[in-house]
Amino acid sequence: MPFARLVLPDVRALLTTAPSELREALDEFHPADLAELLTQLEPGEAAEIVRLIPDELRAEVFEQIPEDLQVSIVTAIPRPEAAHLLDEMAADDRVDLVADLDDETKGQILPLLGIEEARELHALGAYPENTAGGRMTTEFMALREDMTADEAIAHVRAVAEHKETIYYGYVLSPGRELRGVVSLALLVQAKPADKVSAMMETRVVDVRADADQEEVALIIRKYDLLALPVVDEKHRMVGIITVDDILDVASEEATEDIHRLGAVAPMEEPYLRASFWSLLRKRAGWLVLIFVGATFTGTALRHYEGLFEQVPALMLFLPLLISSGGNSGAQSSTLVIRSLALGEIQAAQWFTILWREVRMGLALGVLLGAVGYLRAYLWDADPTVMLTVAVALVGIVLWGCVIGAALPLILRSFNLDPAFASGPFVATFVDVSGIMIYLGVALSMIPNLRA
Amino acid sequence: MPFARLVLPDVRALLTTAPSELREALDEFHPADLAELLTQLEPGEAAEIVRLIPDELRAEVFEQIPEDLQVSIVTAIPRPEAAHLLDEMAADDRVDLVADLDDETKGQILPLLGIEEARELHALGAYPENTAGGRMTTEFMALREDMTADEAIAHVRAVAEHKETIYYGYVLSPGRELRGVVSLALLVQAKPADKVSAMMETRVVDVRADADQEEVALIIRKYDLLALPVVDEKHRMVGIITVDDILDVASEEATEDIHRLGAVAPMEEPYLRASFWSLLRKRAGWLVLIFVGATFTGTALRHYEGLFEQVPALMLFLPLLISSGGNSGAQSSTLVIRSLALGEIQAAQWFTILWREVRMGLALGVLLGAVGYLRAYLWDADPTVMLTVAVALVGIVLWGCVIGAALPLILRSFNLDPAFASGPFVATFVDVSGIMIYLGVALSMIPNLRA
Repeated sequence: MPFARLVLPDVRALLTTAPSELREALDEFHPADLAELLTQLEPGEAAEIVRLIPDELRAEVFEQIPEDLQVSIVTAIPRPEAAHLLDEMAADDRVDLVADLDDETKGQILPLLGIEEARELHALGAYPENTAGGRMTTEFMALREDMTADEAIAHVRAVAEHKETIYYGYVLSPGRELRGVVSLALLVQAKPADKVSAMMETRVVDVRADADQEEVALIIRKYDLLALPVVDEKHRMVGIITVDDILDVASEEATEDIHRLGAVAPMEEPYLRASFWSLLRKRAGWLVLIFVGATFTGTALRHYEGLFEQVPALMLFLPLLISSGGNSGAQSSTLVIRSLALGEIQAAQWFTILWREVRMGLALGVLLGAVGYLRAYLWDADPTVMLTVAVALVGIVLWGCVIGAALPLILRSFNLDPAFASGPFVATFVDVSGIMIYLGVALSMIPNLRA
Repeated sequence: MPFARLVLPDVRALLTTAPSELREALDEFHPADLAELLTQLEPGEAAEIVRLIPDELRAEVFEQIPEDLQVSIVTAIPRPEAAHLLDEMAADDRVDLVADLDDETKGQILPLLGIEEARELHALGAYPENTAGGRMTTEFMALREDMTADEAIAHVRAVAEHKETIYYGYVLSPGRELRGVVSLALLVQAKPADKVSAMMETRVVDVRADADQEEVALIIRKYDLLALPVVDEKHRMVGIITVDDILDVASEEATEDIHRLGAVAPMEEPYLRASFWSLLRKRAGWLVLIFVGATFTGTALRHYEGLFEQVPALMLFLPLLISSGGNSGAQSSTLVIRSLALGEIQAAQWFTILWREVRMGLALGVLLGAVGYLRAYLWDADPTVMLTVAVALVGIVLWGCVIGAALPLILRSFNLDPAFASGPFVATFVDVSGIMIYLGVALSMIPNLRA
């Protein structure tokens, strides 16, 4: 059982009977554990606990709880305390929180912020939340080319407290253009008089402030960085993104893709914290849309209604055949969507991908066709029905693979999220066409059958 | 277009005409870009390029290419060069590579390794690849409690070259027990005579060597660490895992889950690098298994065959109804599987989860039932068929939600991967029971209908 749920009853008891004892106890927790504890409490209790947390830990704990809980707490505590808490937060987290506050609360708290903090808020607020600019903090360590290693380390010591990370120093020109990077490791190992300009790495990997956070995650992962500098359109350095934030981004992006693949609109709150109604909305939208799409299976069947009266055995294989198309399509779309997300393939490689899926669809179709033929044989089906099932399976599975691979590629080429081509969505698409393939094959293979 | 594909033709041309020019050109590349380039080449070409890479970059580049390509290259180049390359690699990457070599190559290369490297290989090789022990490196920085800040920094300078990261120093007892941790940032800011024992953090977050790598990723993410110390059963420190390795782990685990959710057996190679036959195997296994499961839809339909002869309109709604169960089930299983993977929910909370899904299933079922009723009305269906469709939808969607949530929880409580309860798998399970629910409802609601 997670730690936070274990101590929950004790914390609740102390909160009402002996808050000062609780204050002392909280000092012993790791900030991440305290954050986990807060998420297990009612917002009102969480707000009381936040006020009890020692000053030097409070902001660090607060930054790690979900944004909806942050909003409840900031709204619940006295305004000056809220402003003080915001002042102490990292600049990037502060921006995200302020963006979620209602106008009244915002209007009351913002005037109470520190001048420097208000300025940062304004600068960072200009970038959308899911871009490099929205994820960065301005608290990076800047160095000058003409510093010696000794001067640089002295500078690090002087400003370290206010920086998000001091493991990289970024060497800027007087116009704040990014010239190079030097790691603290290198500074520590250098001779005191060595020049920063001589030891800095000039081939710096950076990212534009308007880049998508998914791109940031791919770059940090590829180059094994602890932090990535963010530059504006004139290559002036405006901030950094640290790897711990990117671990969260990578996890959020994977969650978003996984939810989309399961035909659930992405949500930020954990499953059990999301309200019933918000979860219902996230699910109902897609489910109804797919349901309406699936009603076309009825339209297709209506068109061929007479066939089942002539050969009732055809119906026995109907769910089997259409689900086979959906399943092979789900496989293809899953593979293509994940590869696109990881940057392993590009939409421009569509021909290579589709050609591979055509061969794959044929191979899988022949395999399932053989198994289907055998199954029909065991049910004593008529030989022409057996053949119809086998041939239709090849066509349907092939079709499923091609559609499953093509839809995400098409979405990507229109700059939409490929993960909208979820398994259920592809399956519905393939279901309708699968019925037509199946009954089309039946019409051409079974003698005397009339539409 | 990615950088590596852009320079590919030039690199190929230089490789045959002017290798020495190429050697100079390679020096200008970032190691991560060189690694990307190697993955675009044939193994034979890649081996030649690896030999041209400057000595001090070679191992760093080599560590970043996929393991199957590492094996091809090591097997292709002269044995002494291969051994030298292995000597230069990080200990954790070396172990993974050696595990993949065939016995002959291993027998020829291992005797050529350095003594220290061979010893590490032996120590690390004892841990399974996907555990903390299998992912760690032994090259961490150890400090003693009685050191001063100045002595500690001097020690850092002396040993830095051989350490995976020097940003954390781990304070060990004479018996190598983990006592505390101190960051380089803190050492740099301390007064020279400050004692390590006074400034170290004693509440160290660590992990046992036999912990699963997924747990390691959750811990590093929760506590925002750059590196996590790994201890043995006696709390002696044996290694560290760094955050850059964990970014890869998180991405691999997400890929594995996503593939499983799409009913594809997980694979390590990127989609277009995987051979056709290996991909076919990964897909055919699950597809055939699900297909055989889906043949039970035929068995169920056979049981009720007479019903469709009496009321043919029932058939028009069949694919619609069973796909609705599958889709709502896919939503539930996706949500539960992802929440389990993120540690947001535990299998022990099954009652809360299932109760939520029962209410969700009823709400979604009533919604789809209403839409289905309307659709049946527009098709001029018989009123009792309309009611049958609506009532069956409530039952099927409810059943889909419950099964979709229950299957991953059951798998987890047997210590199996919940992601095996993929959308297609759940859908097949729900398809068969959906037919029985539908036709059971029809039998009880349509007068004079006989089984």
